[in-house]
Amino acid sequence: MGESARRRLGGWGFEGEDFPPTGEFLRWLERHLGTGVAVLRGPGRPWRLPAGRELPELAAEVSQDERDRLTHSRGQGLPDILRLRAGAVGFTPDAVCRPATFEEVGEVLERCDQAGIRIIPWGGGTSVTGGVNVIDDQVPTLSLDLERLGELENFDERSRLATFGAGVTGPRVESSLAELGMTLGHFPQSWELSTLGGWVVTRSSGQESLGYGRIDDMVAGLRLVAPAGSLELAPSPGSAAGPDLRRFVLGSEGRFGIVTSVTVRVHPSPQRRVVQAALMRSWDDGLEVVRELTQNRTPLTMLRLSDAPETQVAMAVGLQASRSEPLIRGYLRVRGFGPRACLLLFGATGGSKAIDRAIDGARSVLRRHRGLPLGSKPGAKWLRDRFRHPYLRDGLLDSGYATDTLETAAPWSALEEVRDHVRKAISGALTDRGEAVAVLSHISHPYLDGASLYFTFFFRTTALVEQNIARWAKIKRAATRAIVSSRATLTHHHGIGQWHAPWLPEEIGPSGVAALRAVADALDPKGILNPRVLLDPVDRLEA
Amino acid sequence: MGESARRRLGGWGFEGEDFPPTGEFLRWLERHLGTGVAVLRGPGRPWRLPAGRELPELAAEVSQDERDRLTHSRGQGLPDILRLRAGAVGFTPDAVCRPATFEEVGEVLERCDQAGIRIIPWGGGTSVTGGVNVIDDQVPTLSLDLERLGELENFDERSRLATFGAGVTGPRVESSLAELGMTLGHFPQSWELSTLGGWVVTRSSGQESLGYGRIDDMVAGLRLVAPAGSLELAPSPGSAAGPDLRRFVLGSEGRFGIVTSVTVRVHPSPQRRVVQAALMRSWDDGLEVVRELTQNRTPLTMLRLSDAPETQVAMAVGLQASRSEPLIRGYLRVRGFGPRACLLLFGATGGSKAIDRAIDGARSVLRRHRGLPLGSKPGAKWLRDRFRHPYLRDGLLDSGYATDTLETAAPWSALEEVRDHVRKAISGALTDRGEAVAVLSHISHPYLDGASLYFTFFFRTTALVEQNIARWAKIKRAATRAIVSSRATLTHHHGIGQWHAPWLPEEIGPSGVAALRAVADALDPKGILNPRVLLDPVDRLEA
Repeated sequence: MGESARRRLGGWGFEGEDFPPTGEFLRWLERHLGTGVAVLRGPGRPWRLPAGRELPELAAEVSQDERDRLTHSRGQGLPDILRLRAGAVGFTPDAVCRPATFEEVGEVLERCDQAGIRIIPWGGGTSVTGGVNVIDDQVPTLSLDLERLGELENFDERSRLATFGAGVTGPRVESSLAELGMTLGHFPQSWELSTLGGWVVTRSSGQESLGYGRIDDMVAGLRLVAPAGSLELAPSPGSAAGPDLRRFVLGSEGRFGIVTSVTVRVHPSPQRRVVQAALMRSWDDGLEVVRELTQNRTPLTMLRLSDAPETQVAMAVGLQASRSEPLIRGYLRVRGFGPRACLLLFGATGGSKAIDRAIDGARSVLRRHRGLPLGSKPGAKWLRDRFRHPYLRDGLLDSGYATDTLETAAPWSALEEVRDHVRKAISGALTDRGEAVAVLSHISHPYLDGASLYFTFFFRTTALVEQNIARWAKIKRAATRAIVSSRATLTHHHGIGQWHAPWLPEEIGPSGVAALRAVADALDPKGILNPRVLLDPVDRLEA
Repeated sequence: MGESARRRLGGWGFEGEDFPPTGEFLRWLERHLGTGVAVLRGPGRPWRLPAGRELPELAAEVSQDERDRLTHSRGQGLPDILRLRAGAVGFTPDAVCRPATFEEVGEVLERCDQAGIRIIPWGGGTSVTGGVNVIDDQVPTLSLDLERLGELENFDERSRLATFGAGVTGPRVESSLAELGMTLGHFPQSWELSTLGGWVVTRSSGQESLGYGRIDDMVAGLRLVAPAGSLELAPSPGSAAGPDLRRFVLGSEGRFGIVTSVTVRVHPSPQRRVVQAALMRSWDDGLEVVRELTQNRTPLTMLRLSDAPETQVAMAVGLQASRSEPLIRGYLRVRGFGPRACLLLFGATGGSKAIDRAIDGARSVLRRHRGLPLGSKPGAKWLRDRFRHPYLRDGLLDSGYATDTLETAAPWSALEEVRDHVRKAISGALTDRGEAVAVLSHISHPYLDGASLYFTFFFRTTALVEQNIARWAKIKRAATRAIVSSRATLTHHHGIGQWHAPWLPEEIGPSGVAALRAVADALDPKGILNPRVLLDPVDRLEA
């Protein structure tokens, strides 16, 4: 990763970076799914890009460069990657605009509002819900890339408040804060690419949310520019001055305006970061440990429990090329850790004393639930690779397998039923086509009252892009139906975008939709801001 | 306090309960303000109550009883009490309606929406911002008292979630939970009278917010009935499914609908509750201690720092009738604790080990800042009386002094400037009338990034109710202007109501107002729900 590295087109991350699947993992996939047809990188046929339409003069930098428009045409969902690999990109924005100031954003919005130009706000472009996708060419469309609003604007040391331009990426947030001895502690998997503004409008949650909270908790103030006016919410530790408008903006996905700067609550940089591993005899044991550690407020910053299939894959990959594999497996079996065993990662940050207290607290709960400590090696590996995992999808496509993830959250009492329901929906989604789907799941964001559930699924690919996308859409629909019918939330941290939007009314009801739509109409009366996300009920999974 | 006790009319709490000022305190007031004219309890002239207008048949219990209408005419703001004592009640609702179910609330709303009847939702009626006040008789008005929706409806032990009818009062919340070994931990000063639904729609914060959070943090799910439809938000530990509609309802003050039930996050009942006291040499020292204890996450559940005048009053009251007073004062002065000394209370709840750790952590920070530990006596006294303090106002009025409180919050870096600005505004507000105003302040809700500021002020009363109200309004306007011009929030936990509404646009701007109004219009198109609060910009301090 480097600031000057070029973003890969039609794949995750930066050119030159890769995280290929191990041979052991590919054999596991072949065993479960059969052999797939490799999906070639790079367009199967040349990009056919119509020229960008002429736009009125805008008060900010505008590019109609072909590659620029291509990279801003879609996010990072599986169908996006499949289409880009096939060269079947569909539609692109007519131009990419990069305002450098709050004022420029306002002027661009005003001009576009007058001229009827649609705006799709662009942070890191890592949406996996169709959140930045251009899906028609009915009206001229501008991608509004906020990368030039990417600086630390203010630091209030006493209050531990830092104000950043909304287009600042994860690494830049942390490097700016590190110079001040501080950290935000927000580490979503997309961290290397995604931006603070993107985190806010999609209600992101990072891997250390147990310690540092969701982005929702971190936002003390913000600035939003909308066609009908701007919203400037000063940092406030707590207030009862009507409904909290910061919370209106959180999750608004660009529909209510463009977030231009955000003031976040920051913390002293931890001296150390430790992630330990343990093996639990069963999912149920692991679930009890995670719930107990969370509810008794053991001061951990992360907890992650993999189910048995995910644990098997992790072990297969981790133990590959290890000549002691049969020995280790034999040992574990004897100790009662058979194929139902589940891997638990638990982490803490801070000074040595704080970390010791947290880890000791965790170990004593683990012991009571017959967990087997595995030490710090698996955790160190996870820490090292945690932002590289998204690259795996590209390597899998090269080998004939597609993968995607989806997630939800539910109260502890409903968690097992939801997980079961969703797993079954995913794994059986292609049965009528005679295709297997492999599914792994884990918990990674526990709360006092419940936890997130994260699902990773795999299916094999064919030579036909539309067929691959149809398979994916079928799985996605089945899983989403299972989630909403369980009354779990549609998404814990991926957002709604275009793809979850048809189901949102089932979660929040017609009055909830009416309330959100009313705010959008008030701040963006002509509906120029990303009108296909959040509130547009059309199923666009295959668009 | 007892469930069958009768609410006092024109004063705080229950008939028969009192918390009179000590002689020492009255002497302190006389010294600072001069002698006032006692404000008589009970109407100076008989209530003149027009008959309630005839209303259409409603699907719930309806009362037009005169006392019922009187008790539902106003909240507990100082001018409310002054008017009620004088018998100058103004307007009353035409009737009080007490629905017993969610469905009845819906039917009542539908009928009132058709018939153009205004509804003022009523929880505990403890608003100190004019939040439940009937201020005209232009349209028939119904007070919708939710007291019959006051039961524990569901308890999910694994998820630690409890669902209550919104009309449940504080003591009932805690007694229901205590039977299950649980607590909510929400203790606003109004706790004996106020209700869960009221806490939610005014974004209440309790005295142990440092440990248990604000009501905002406690709400996992809720049910709201509005004229345009209902909103049912299932409990969810965390979500990215668009903006969080729970947060739209929090602080909506009845404008968006009637909250009928709330699911809250609850905690195991603490074995013990300890509050310790210490004396700091100065406000600045105390401020540093509070900030440090909060930012280093010492697991306290409360922190309260009184400024020097509040400390002097507390000592005068506490030491009255103590023959050792001169001795104690002399000792303190020698040790460097003169008239600038500030009282700090710090509390913890839980098991003995957890409490010891928190208190020890606090003491070591205190020592570094040259604090003098005072042990647990002052804290025990505060705990004993914490819900009785509101009765003090009635006793003071009997003696010729009016008192009121107001509050805000600000980042740590701005706190001292805000406090100074507001204190000066209050104490000088009546200078042009030749009247002194005494003002005490404290911090009682610290956060990582800032804290609340709470002001208690006193002025002497005359025989004329309108003159007393005019004095109060002048102070209130000066203080509020000081708050908004400092860019601090209008209110940390009292809410907006009618009285802060004219200033809300200065805090959230026209776009913020437009967003809130849009939601109100969507859910309550005819504006029958409490239309004078939150968004009505008319100054009604003297209404």
